[in-house]
Amino acid sequence: MYILGIGRTKFGVLPESIPEMMYESIYKALDDANMDVKELDAIFVSNFIGDSSYNQAHLSSIASTLLPDTNLPSFRVEAACAGGGVALHLGLNTLHKYKNVLVIGVEKMTDLGSMESLRSVCSATDLVLEQKEGLVFPAAGALVSQLYMKKNNVTLKDLNLVALKNHENANLNPYAHFYGKKVTEEIINNSPIICSPLRLFDCSPNSDGAASVIISNEKRNKRDIKIAASEMATGNIHLAIENDITNFPATKIAGEKAYKAAGITPKEINFAEIHDGFTAMEMSSMEDLQLCKPGKAKELIRNGITKLNGKLPINMDGGLKANGHPIGATGIAQIYELVTQLRGEAKKRQVPGNIGLAYTFGALVGSASVHILRG
Amino acid sequence: MYILGIGRTKFGVLPESIPEMMYESIYKALDDANMDVKELDAIFVSNFIGDSSYNQAHLSSIASTLLPDTNLPSFRVEAACAGGGVALHLGLNTLHKYKNVLVIGVEKMTDLGSMESLRSVCSATDLVLEQKEGLVFPAAGALVSQLYMKKNNVTLKDLNLVALKNHENANLNPYAHFYGKKVTEEIINNSPIICSPLRLFDCSPNSDGAASVIISNEKRNKRDIKIAASEMATGNIHLAIENDITNFPATKIAGEKAYKAAGITPKEINFAEIHDGFTAMEMSSMEDLQLCKPGKAKELIRNGITKLNGKLPINMDGGLKANGHPIGATGIAQIYELVTQLRGEAKKRQVPGNIGLAYTFGALVGSASVHILRG
Repeated sequence: MYILGIGRTKFGVLPESIPEMMYESIYKALDDANMDVKELDAIFVSNFIGDSSYNQAHLSSIASTLLPDTNLPSFRVEAACAGGGVALHLGLNTLHKYKNVLVIGVEKMTDLGSMESLRSVCSATDLVLEQKEGLVFPAAGALVSQLYMKKNNVTLKDLNLVALKNHENANLNPYAHFYGKKVTEEIINNSPIICSPLRLFDCSPNSDGAASVIISNEKRNKRDIKIAASEMATGNIHLAIENDITNFPATKIAGEKAYKAAGITPKEINFAEIHDGFTAMEMSSMEDLQLCKPGKAKELIRNGITKLNGKLPINMDGGLKANGHPIGATGIAQIYELVTQLRGEAKKRQVPGNIGLAYTFGALVGSASVHILRG
Repeated sequence: MYILGIGRTKFGVLPESIPEMMYESIYKALDDANMDVKELDAIFVSNFIGDSSYNQAHLSSIASTLLPDTNLPSFRVEAACAGGGVALHLGLNTLHKYKNVLVIGVEKMTDLGSMESLRSVCSATDLVLEQKEGLVFPAAGALVSQLYMKKNNVTLKDLNLVALKNHENANLNPYAHFYGKKVTEEIINNSPIICSPLRLFDCSPNSDGAASVIISNEKRNKRDIKIAASEMATGNIHLAIENDITNFPATKIAGEKAYKAAGITPKEINFAEIHDGFTAMEMSSMEDLQLCKPGKAKELIRNGITKLNGKLPINMDGGLKANGHPIGATGIAQIYELVTQLRGEAKKRQVPGNIGLAYTFGALVGSASVHILRG
């Protein structure tokens, strides 16, 4: 399994519509792969809230309409914030049938009001046990963060270090939502508390954007990147029935299966894109993915190990926190970054190594996907 | 590829929630297959408007939560009214990897107001070129019906015959939305015009319901039914850029590919479940699927060929018109009916033959799926 082409829009507050963003990312990916549209055999589209917020579902057919007269098999996949990774996983599972598959992730969020976007995003969680009880996402994230911090003696300063690192990385990524934004610890500490202990800078933003990749079982060019593993697992959609909400079975299972499939140990990962919807989740996910021992993520953060010049760079593109989080596109954007790094095309944010991991989750944690790429 | 088990709820105005309906259909299918939940390897969920109407997306994780501690790979697929067929198609394409796959279709519609359900259902169509122009679904269906009727000298009485047949069949199907409802031509002709030429009885209803099937590459029991073909194709999401809106390329392509894959000619089909979202679409789809020559569907209808005692029974369960149309579940319910017929378990509506076809479409026609089953 190989990635033959990648394309993305800038993430941020964009004037473009959903189809316009899709179009840009699709044709950039085709250009990157030096591939004609007629060479595509199937399409997967990841989108989360197009229907609940814009009344635009059926994006599989929109994608087909953007590739006129192809009449390709086309599939919309939705898995909340994990959608991009899950759509890629499913696309990879059809490569025995289709030669070249286009996987698109897209989301439009920034022209919704804040209450409207909050409502839509909460559709990832359980209607009865969470939404109707008022457990909105930042509140759920705060619950998890509080318990994780208490269990592992993690401080607010540790969370700040995650946000600072990711904003620093985003300032080297012209496509990032917060490219060019200067962030200091003082700015973070003066930012509003969203839901204690989470401040504004602990939460990923609402972003617009799209990203596309073209996958195949056949390598075409020297710069094509191998997908060594693609796994997904699910967990309970609601926190209420979990005994421990500081670490998540779906993440652990997907990670273990991915290492096994790739034939590597977690120690062989050189860098990773880790779903940092909330800063503490970057830390707890590193543990669930065995990138460090339980409770030890704070030490990696404090010692700069996860910075671009550290031994295990995390979220080189700025992560959800600063690259942005156009939900359906996020998982594909992570792959975009891994491919860019593995090709050696990441310029000022280039890190060494030839094995990268991408991890996304939906709800806490109802869906988890893990991909391992090899340069 | 085989169907090992089937389960469904009644369709209609139900008090149950989305997870409750899913649960009922899942465990009925497991019982039918005499299979333990631990034998499942993956889940696909088809749902259309759960997010736009109930703010409940991420039904892949809900399904996993209903099968506790399985942490199975689980995928939500959305393709407007074709969702059930498309989810099944995608599930079948993963059987090289998973042994037993559960495919669930579910929809909750009847406690929405009529404007709210109209809005939600229109999310299948293009936001800019159709929704914002006011081209709601019955209006689009009426445009297609008018042109189809004019082109082929089809009368209002022909449409009535389709509705009468499907209601008659539904009265032999205790699971049908309109089971027990007496419908006469007089009742139809006195019913309100929704959008000329379509009266109330030309339009499928809003229904609640769920249906599940369990699929595998391995046959376990004598009564397991073979899937001889599964195909899908897409078309333009909007009517505006089509030259001819009386017949649809996506349907023709999916049908042709399915006959080829099954190694049969259209004449070998003994009975079929055909997406009759509007009565005229049952007729035009028969032509696109080559079940009769172009323009000749009216003759089959007039001569009773498509009735239960005719040579080519269509919509034995009552079709969308009278079995009901819980959108995400419809494609799976069609498979439920084909399997029931091919097993010889359809009681008073049993028809002869060992090859059945199921066809669903989303938008007009943005997505099309065709399945051929063999007893």
